[in-house]
Amino acid sequence: MSDRPARLLPRLEAIVGAGQVLTAPDDVAGYRSDGRGAGGGVPLAVVRPATADEVSALVRLAAAEGVRLVVQGARTGLAGAGLAGEEDLVVNLDRLSRRIAIDPVNRSATVDAGVRLSALNAAAAEHGLFFPIDLGADPSLGGMVAANTGGARLLRYGDVRANLMALDVVMADAEGTRLTLGAPLWKNNTGLDLKQLLVGSGGSMGIVTQVTVALQPLAAVQLTAMVALRDPGAAVDLLGAVESGLGTLLSAFEGIGPAALEAALGHVPGLRAPFAQVPPYAVLLEISAGAMFEAEWLEERLANLLAPLMEGEDAPIIDVAIDHRDGLWHIRHAVPEGLRASGTVVACDIALKRGDVMRFREDMAARLAAAVPALVPHDFGHIGDGGLHYNCVWPRAAGPVDVAAVERARAIIFDAVVREYGGSFSAEHGIGPRNIAHYPRFVPAPVRRLAGAVQRLFAPVPGGRIDFGME
Amino acid sequence: MSDRPARLLPRLEAIVGAGQVLTAPDDVAGYRSDGRGAGGGVPLAVVRPATADEVSALVRLAAAEGVRLVVQGARTGLAGAGLAGEEDLVVNLDRLSRRIAIDPVNRSATVDAGVRLSALNAAAAEHGLFFPIDLGADPSLGGMVAANTGGARLLRYGDVRANLMALDVVMADAEGTRLTLGAPLWKNNTGLDLKQLLVGSGGSMGIVTQVTVALQPLAAVQLTAMVALRDPGAAVDLLGAVESGLGTLLSAFEGIGPAALEAALGHVPGLRAPFAQVPPYAVLLEISAGAMFEAEWLEERLANLLAPLMEGEDAPIIDVAIDHRDGLWHIRHAVPEGLRASGTVVACDIALKRGDVMRFREDMAARLAAAVPALVPHDFGHIGDGGLHYNCVWPRAAGPVDVAAVERARAIIFDAVVREYGGSFSAEHGIGPRNIAHYPRFVPAPVRRLAGAVQRLFAPVPGGRIDFGME
Repeated sequence: MSDRPARLLPRLEAIVGAGQVLTAPDDVAGYRSDGRGAGGGVPLAVVRPATADEVSALVRLAAAEGVRLVVQGARTGLAGAGLAGEEDLVVNLDRLSRRIAIDPVNRSATVDAGVRLSALNAAAAEHGLFFPIDLGADPSLGGMVAANTGGARLLRYGDVRANLMALDVVMADAEGTRLTLGAPLWKNNTGLDLKQLLVGSGGSMGIVTQVTVALQPLAAVQLTAMVALRDPGAAVDLLGAVESGLGTLLSAFEGIGPAALEAALGHVPGLRAPFAQVPPYAVLLEISAGAMFEAEWLEERLANLLAPLMEGEDAPIIDVAIDHRDGLWHIRHAVPEGLRASGTVVACDIALKRGDVMRFREDMAARLAAAVPALVPHDFGHIGDGGLHYNCVWPRAAGPVDVAAVERARAIIFDAVVREYGGSFSAEHGIGPRNIAHYPRFVPAPVRRLAGAVQRLFAPVPGGRIDFGME
Repeated sequence: MSDRPARLLPRLEAIVGAGQVLTAPDDVAGYRSDGRGAGGGVPLAVVRPATADEVSALVRLAAAEGVRLVVQGARTGLAGAGLAGEEDLVVNLDRLSRRIAIDPVNRSATVDAGVRLSALNAAAAEHGLFFPIDLGADPSLGGMVAANTGGARLLRYGDVRANLMALDVVMADAEGTRLTLGAPLWKNNTGLDLKQLLVGSGGSMGIVTQVTVALQPLAAVQLTAMVALRDPGAAVDLLGAVESGLGTLLSAFEGIGPAALEAALGHVPGLRAPFAQVPPYAVLLEISAGAMFEAEWLEERLANLLAPLMEGEDAPIIDVAIDHRDGLWHIRHAVPEGLRASGTVVACDIALKRGDVMRFREDMAARLAAAVPALVPHDFGHIGDGGLHYNCVWPRAAGPVDVAAVERARAIIFDAVVREYGGSFSAEHGIGPRNIAHYPRFVPAPVRRLAGAVQRLFAPVPGGRIDFGME
């Protein structure tokens, strides 16, 4: 430990105010965890700027002193990108959250980066609008950009990138240069779209201070159906049938494997089981429609659409539960909690081609059963977009977790996803310390070299914890 | 003129074959025009590679010889990005068009960069799918990436960027490095998304050789309505009403000013006038729905939705024409031809915030009438996304075009769009020699410096005709 803190702290306080520089272990403790729990090192301090000017001043100071900044939003991330390394300076943006400006005719919103998704949606709802990235968590908008979150409605509305109009950024350079990239416009092509480089960057390309996004009309009518399938493979036929039948009214198509469904129903209080028994696979689909529809009419049409798949003894659909409220979504959103209650969760946020999801599940379950029998797949996810939370549980009954075996299992899963299936080792949780080890394994060297060179242009001084040029 | 041709031509022929290096003026003539007509200089030669390996070899040769390459797709572009400068080498990708691979379950297509939109859509239609970028022209997929085309259905499906999964690229470096950026996945966040930098780059960041895009289910039922408005300002209320009523079934919301509508109906044969007289403003809206709908039911619901706007003597809607086929789209697509038949067209591809479109029209018509009275606004466009083709016509009757006056008008229009309205001087036609002069006027210097530095990483040797770092 150097004399750095003694020199730095007064200067940090001069920028953000005395009460906004936290160093006491108790004060800092709450900033050392994210959506997956505790992680990272003990930071030099946590600073809480309230304006982009303060952020820029912090970057200048950090650059001059050679201190690494780690930017932090709502700490709901799953990849660890907001967690500091030892001796880093945490820049927490909770206070940079005053501005929420809705333009209802343009269907756009401009918000400070620390504004939470729930706050944006509350403001947008007053105009019959919403930001269509649907998540279990309540992240900040800046964090959503850093992770390029996808969620359950990507099938209909796309990811953060597809709904992003503009960013205000403080570059990680010696001057803390402030840039506005983009504008509150639906169409805009005026040269290289540099803001795209911040999206999914895990906060390692500069600090986003303001975000402008497109909004969508709130659905007047929503309807969910949970479909019990005789065989997981039938999910592909069901997806084809509802996509051609419902067209753009289909707003989500989620899959839940039997272990995951059992874990949710068995461990999370207050859920009502949708079926008499847990089926071999369950699909949750959602219909979102405008004010010209009635829910009953939609329900009748959906029933007609599913009827051909329910005929005969070996029909692909065993049962259907329909809901006009949020009950079925509660089951889906309860799955992560159900898994945590079942044991130690080994999470793999992967993506596959849509046609490969069911084959991968079966293949991987067999391989893991042979290689690491104690680890039980509890997969679920956004199978309508090929996103799969291929999570496994090390059950409490299996005794202490064998860390080496878990790492072996992870390697088996990720190698198969990328090398055999052409899938992704990082689908929608973004890149951070928790998954960066896979980056140099799977991203080819020429792409990494180019990415590293681009990163050095945006962030010539230490910023974030990810080196996109890593060998 | 140096001895360059004599040295280069045999080496070019060695790469692509003798018949694929064109130098005779007659052979080259067809490659010296794009969607706006003739332009650019006399190229050194036009070479027509058929594989990415050939493209890479051409880049290596050009880098070694200091020759600038200009890549060219289907020559439908409107910004001139595919037109060569004097002594450039044109790389035409028409022959790089063998591969069209549809993955119907994944809803994705991987195609060679020279494949036309119509060819992709014909192959996709066999699986009930389409690539949802709707244009009047028939560009190559590589060209669509270079322009980041938007079109009439952006409102529902987004631009090329929002539907892009992967690119194969030949970098404009000394080695002609080949990179694959992305994968055929709906969700994928594995570091910086470098392919985004090629999108909208006008071919000046490298040469795209293969494109993977997401496809959408073809609508089983489509319905268009042309709505005659008493006052242009009512378009905003109409947009609000149909967006909340129709929800995601609304797939286009186009606007046509009276001069543009008159020009189409008056000059293009075979069109049937939708209304007894040309209204102050016309909106064309489209509903796209899945197989569970019947067109008659949708028409009835649409009528119910519009009814409140048709009540009373001063009702905002004067008349509605409904069409179950393509008749109304033909009118919309005939507008550019109608304008060309009316005189010399001065085209401005701009974007505004949606709430500003009608105010801008009125404001600009008054200013132009005062500044350049001969020039008559004939605007139309994608007002549901704020995209406006603010085109003007210098009528034949007004005599020879006063070029200085036209340039004055352009400056008035673009300055107002960007500086007063916060809009865009380049909405969906991309960047090229025809509009690059506005780039340094409206893009701030720090953004240009960063863009130029990024461009030099991708394209360290001369490539394309646009310098994103230009002062």
